[in-house]
Amino acid sequence: MTHEIPAHDVRAGALTLWRLVPWLAPAVVLAVVDPGVATARRAVAIEASPPGGGRLLLVGPDNGLLLPAAQAAGGVARAVELSDPAWHLPAPLRAGKGATFAGRDVFAPAAAHLSCGVDLARLGPAVEPSGLVGQPVERPRRQGDALVATVLWVDRYGNAQLNVTPADLAPLGPALWLRRPGEPSLPVALAGAFAELPLGRPGLVTDSYGLCALCLDRASAAAFVGLGPGDTVSIAATS
Amino acid sequence: MTHEIPAHDVRAGALTLWRLVPWLAPAVVLAVVDPGVATARRAVAIEASPPGGGRLLLVGPDNGLLLPAAQAAGGVARAVELSDPAWHLPAPLRAGKGATFAGRDVFAPAAAHLSCGVDLARLGPAVEPSGLVGQPVERPRRQGDALVATVLWVDRYGNAQLNVTPADLAPLGPALWLRRPGEPSLPVALAGAFAELPLGRPGLVTDSYGLCALCLDRASAAAFVGLGPGDTVSIAATS
Amino acid sequence: MTHEIPAHDVRAGALTLWRLVPWLAPAVVLAVVDPGVATARRAVAIEASPPGGGRLLLVGPDNGLLLPAAQAAGGVARAVELSDPAWHLPAPLRAGKGATFAGRDVFAPAAAHLSCGVDLARLGPAVEPSGLVGQPVERPRRQGDALVATVLWVDRYGNAQLNVTPADLAPLGPALWLRRPGEPSLPVALAGAFAELPLGRPGLVTDSYGLCALCLDRASAAAFVGLGPGDTVSIAATS
Repeated sequence: MTHEIPAHDVRAGALTLWRLVPWLAPAVVLAVVDPGVATARRAVAIEASPPGGGRLLLVGPDNGLLLPAAQAAGGVARAVELSDPAWHLPAPLRAGKGATFAGRDVFAPAAAHLSCGVDLARLGPAVEPSGLVGQPVERPRRQGDALVATVLWVDRYGNAQLNVTPADLAPLGPALWLRRPGEPSLPVALAGAFAELPLGRPGLVTDSYGLCALCLDRASAAAFVGLGPGDTVSIAATS
Repeated sequence: MTHEIPAHDVRAGALTLWRLVPWLAPAVVLAVVDPGVATARRAVAIEASPPGGGRLLLVGPDNGLLLPAAQAAGGVARAVELSDPAWHLPAPLRAGKGATFAGRDVFAPAAAHLSCGVDLARLGPAVEPSGLVGQPVERPRRQGDALVATVLWVDRYGNAQLNVTPADLAPLGPALWLRRPGEPSLPVALAGAFAELPLGRPGLVTDSYGLCALCLDRASAAAFVGLGPGDTVSIAATS
Repeated sequence: MTHEIPAHDVRAGALTLWRLVPWLAPAVVLAVVDPGVATARRAVAIEASPPGGGRLLLVGPDNGLLLPAAQAAGGVARAVELSDPAWHLPAPLRAGKGATFAGRDVFAPAAAHLSCGVDLARLGPAVEPSGLVGQPVERPRRQGDALVATVLWVDRYGNAQLNVTPADLAPLGPALWLRRPGEPSLPVALAGAFAELPLGRPGLVTDSYGLCALCLDRASAAAFVGLGPGDTVSIAATS
């Protein structure tokens, strides 16, 4: 799906999977952002059954990377720990090595076996779904008259996706400002397309995942406003 | 074919497709550089029949991205507008979203249907070929004794591809200089291979698309001379 | 396998192939790092029979790119020069062009024919294995009490892979320092996983290829110490 997750950024990987859920199933998804490789963190495979149909199998480390996607896909139906070396890579040079690349030695073989029809339950002992590591994707919160939102993602164009839907914004009305903590307010237009934004002026566009993104036409809104993933902004009606 | 077209650079995308035409057909090509997404620009599919045989189907926005390739492939035989939502992505969460990612919701499904054998005419109403948006790739022009050329592309090695063929250069003879507007002239060798260029000296090599490119052996000619796509240079015989 | 070899860096390409040998066969591998394209360097296809089974066919320039992998795969069994134009790309526009892109016009067609079952011997005249260009991967050397090692590779996380195995280090004992020429010594821990390294302190981890790599937990050891591919370091026991 992508090779562009920043190194060690489990949250960015988890949000990428979460965004793609509506377009994935049926699928076996191998995902690796694994800074704790070769430590006590578990290797797991998770099965979910999205409401849209099809089965979604997620393979990777149990560090929060997989759970938001599984939650968005109807919740965890089954999960196993990939602790059985019989299903791992029988690499001829493996003695004393391989421990730092579970993506190759543990996750990829498990995903390949699942793709070939091996049942999840055969790959290892069952894991209690409630014990899997991960947080739901945060929701915006009200603070006085403002909505406090989080930047989930800055895409390659510099659009800053917020954890805000058009329905979240509707009560605020059509004339809005946006503000980073401790900075002046910025009027933001609501637009249906990038090219409908006033030249050089940022605005909110409903992006292709159904979330509101701060955008500039043919330029980077994130660079213009100084935003990165995880940053907080306030949005409120122009009084 | 590539994911390295600069954001919003329709011209770079169009030239990339145009360069690849001799190696493409038969093929269905999905191309998206679409800064006007969700505005009045049309979504289209174009059919061409290159002289070398095979059929070339190009799917993307009608913004100049596709037309140079279609022209190089024998011209537009048929075209349709992808305006029939029955062929678009039936994404379950699509209400109020999807409008900003025609690549996923309109172009990719159309390309997939074409790949599966659906006839172009079924995907939408016919479009008059002469009404498609786009310019032919520019040709060099004479200005006194010089040839005024344009940089079409700088590849990852820093070779600067010009809109000039060996046949265009032949009348000038073998001893040439090249000049950017307002700068001193630079002698340029003609060479058959990068490694035949004198060390640290730029020269013109017929590149793998049959065009003359300004090159340096194992270094970037574009950085050395200060050239980027769209820049103009003069080439003339050393008197 | 990767598109991230630095331009013109034959050594980096050769080491990448060499590292991947245990996971490749059976395979036809097309590899192109070819700064001497269109000069006297030969285009070749090489067959090797790795001890683990399967046949490995390597296609590319005879400039040292392929030989270390072939040596690691049991040695060169057969080799041919790809000098027969009957097997090259019959590109319609080829007159006067194509000479600078053997990857497309010579190597890719040869690899495709091999993949379809054409025997190596049919693609061109036999080449004497001992005449192929290339050096074995260097080994560390002793200098007094120290082991002088070379950085083979810096991966995307900044781990600096050395040409040193755990067996090479064993005689030095568990307490080590590492030193760049002319710089102070740096104590380095031996660890089984990145996350076992002391925070902000570099150490040696046996990487996923079985070699010792200088690593920092969730940061770039190469940037921290100032190391790049080809650099030399000394490693010795803390006295």
